[in-house]
Formats: sequence, C-alpha cells, structure tokens
Amino acid sequence: MKRKNIPSVTINRLSLYHRCLEKLIENIDKKKPKYISSSGIAEITGINSAQIRKDLAYFGEFGKRGIGYPLIDLSRELKNILGLDKKWSVIIAGAGNLGKALVKYEGFQKRGFVIKGVFDNNPSKIGNKYDHIFIYDIKEIEEFIQAEKINIGMIVVPADSAQKVADKMVAGGVKAILNFAPVRITLPPEIKIHNVDLSIEFEGLTYYLNL
Amino acid sequence: MKRKNIPSVTINRLSLYHRCLEKLIENIDKKKPKYISSSGIAEITGINSAQIRKDLAYFGEFGKRGIGYPLIDLSRELKNILGLDKKWSVIIAGAGNLGKALVKYEGFQKRGFVIKGVFDNNPSKIGNKYDHIFIYDIKEIEEFIQAEKINIGMIVVPADSAQKVADKMVAGGVKAILNFAPVRITLPPEIKIHNVDLSIEFEGLTYYLNL
Repeated sequence: MKRKNIPSVTINRLSLYHRCLEKLIENIDKKKPKYISSSGIAEITGINSAQIRKDLAYFGEFGKRGIGYPLIDLSRELKNILGLDKKWSVIIAGAGNLGKALVKYEGFQKRGFVIKGVFDNNPSKIGNKYDHIFIYDIKEIEEFIQAEKINIGMIVVPADSAQKVADKMVAGGVKAILNFAPVRITLPPEIKIHNVDLSIEFEGLTYYLNL
Repeated sequence: MKRKNIPSVTINRLSLYHRCLEKLIENIDKKKPKYISSSGIAEITGINSAQIRKDLAYFGEFGKRGIGYPLIDLSRELKNILGLDKKWSVIIAGAGNLGKALVKYEGFQKRGFVIKGVFDNNPSKIGNKYDHIFIYDIKEIEEFIQAEKINIGMIVVPADSAQKVADKMVAGGVKAILNFAPVRITLPPEIKIHNVDLSIEFEGLTYYLNL
C-alpha cells in the first residue's frame, strides 16, 4: 500500500484509537465477537466520529455498515499499520540515572522495543552493564548502529551534547530519535524525531486540583 | 465558574490546544498581536474545528468572529484553566534510578511542579539527598503530605508495592497520582490518577520506520 501522503496528525490519532481498542479488549468477554462504532470510539477518544471514519478509510474498509468495527481485528490492523507488531532495535545514549532507568523499564521490551546497548563518554561507566545491557564508549556508536542495524536512538545526555550525539546516530543509520534532552535538535527531514516532555504527564491532573 | 461537568476528553484536548498555542507563540513576531482561527488550531492538532469551538466555549468567549482567537490571551487563559500557572507540591515514592532521574528532571520545576521530598524503605538511602531533595523513610509519607500540603504524588516503586504506597498517599491527602509502576492502582473516585506508559513515546515513530 502506498502510504506516503498520510497526514502526521492522522498517524497520531491512529495511535490513540489503537490504545482505546486495546483497553476495550482487555475488558471484553472473550467468547463473543465484539464491534464498536465510530461514535463509540469518538466517545472514548474525544475525536469526532466523521474524522475517525476518514482516518481509518485511508488504510482500508475495516467496518461493516450498521454493525461497526470488529474490535480485535481493527486493533490488530492498527498495530500492524503503526509498526507495533514488530521488534525494534534501540540504543540509549547517556548512562546517567534516566538512561539506567530506561534500560530497566519493563514496558519497552513488552511493546517490542529491544534495547541493544547504552553509550557514554565516562570511562568509569564504559565496560559495565545495566542488567544484561553493556555500556559502550560513545565513540563506537556509529559503528554499533551499522553492525547491529539499530532503528531508533534514545537521547538522554545533557542538553549541550544532544545535537552532537544525534548527528552521530544519524550518521550511523538510525531512522528515528526519541529525545529526552531539554533542547531542540536539528536533523535531516527524513529522520523522525520525538521530543519527550515528561511534565505533560501532569497536565489534565492539575485541572482537577484547580477546581 | 462552575466546571464540575466538563468531560475529561475536553480537558485532555485543552492541554493539546495549550501546547499547540505555546509552540506557535515561541515562533511569532512579538510586536504584532496575532490571532488563530479554530481551523488553524484544527490543522495543527488534528481535532475537528467545531469540536475546538465547543471545547473552548465551555469556558468563555475567547474568539472574535471573523478574526479568531488571540494567541497569547487564549494561551494564558488555557494555562489558568488547566492550573498550569500555579506551583504544585509534589513528592516521589521510590528512590531508585527513575526516582533519582525525576528529581533531576528540569522540565518539572520549569512547569511549576516542585518536588518536596523522595520516600523509600531502603535504610541505606534514607537520610541521603538527591540534589537538594531529602530522601525520607516511607513510614513518614502520610505525615509529610499533611504537613507540607502536598498536592500530587509520583509513584516509581516496584509494581508489588505500588497500591500500598498509593493508599498511604491518599490517606495523607494527595488529590492526584502519577503512576510509573506497571500495575493498575485502585483509588477512591475523587482521586485523579494518570498511569504513565513511556513506550507510548515511541508510537508514531514506528509508523514511519514501517513504510
């Protein structure tokens, strides 16, 4: 399927639909096939139902008129479209506390994000392990990415070295970067970057504290 | 303003609008007053423009017909509605790597989330400091929450002690919990909880790797 021209906001919404379906599936009676209408998804996600139908129609005809979308099949299709049914090879640049915490974070492995190595420039850390993951010299990062066919790089180094590390990752061949450093990184347009801001997790909570 | 009956999906979208406006403001020419239409916000956020107008209308009349919403004023109003213009007192339960990383995370302080203490049950950690933040005995958590008027608790303890810690936080008086432990926590309905799943940060990236 040719998919180059699908808006990135649609992709973000697919992610949302997928998570919404997964939660529903967790709670359904396994024996009966279950369906959900676009207005059912709209009610949970807050996205307009016409928009939901349009987003899904980019990728095929998943629903049956008057019945809705089959929960499990649609969830599987979205998982496939979003690339969440595959394993992805990931490295972490930065062996500080957050780097160590991310190595040990169980959710990544469970979702198919397999951490292959951690990189740092601190000689006292290089050669050690976090769990079963080696800490390598940051100088080896390019070569490692090539040899191990790494798809995604996570940046958890201090802000002032983030750009340099990102450049090395791209030179090595990563196609996507998850940046935890509090700084804007400039990359070639074909490389996807997502800047993580953990303070966003608080939003929505403070509204209720504020009432 | 009476705001009890506003749907939680509306609140989540307000967060999204607010971030969208903040990004726009970062890039505008400070000298001229700037406006954005609901369809302008729609284009960036992917939310339907009728929905945007409806969401904002819950809280007042922010826009001018034919001109749009004033960027800076609307952003400030949303910040106020979402409680993001205040300082919030936060504690962290769990002095592991993630706990330590969160203490040092610059984004929280910048957004008004002030960490007042870390709690753990490990005697070798209790009494130490991460940066200038003390690590207290988890047994003192209830009393501390009361005395320091803590609003929000972050849970970064192992899954099997998360519920117990959450119960103590609620007994102490927190009104909202940010849970990093990979487990469902049950709380009284008036307490808000947000379960953090860091693997979500990867979503949207893998779609493009999958093309």
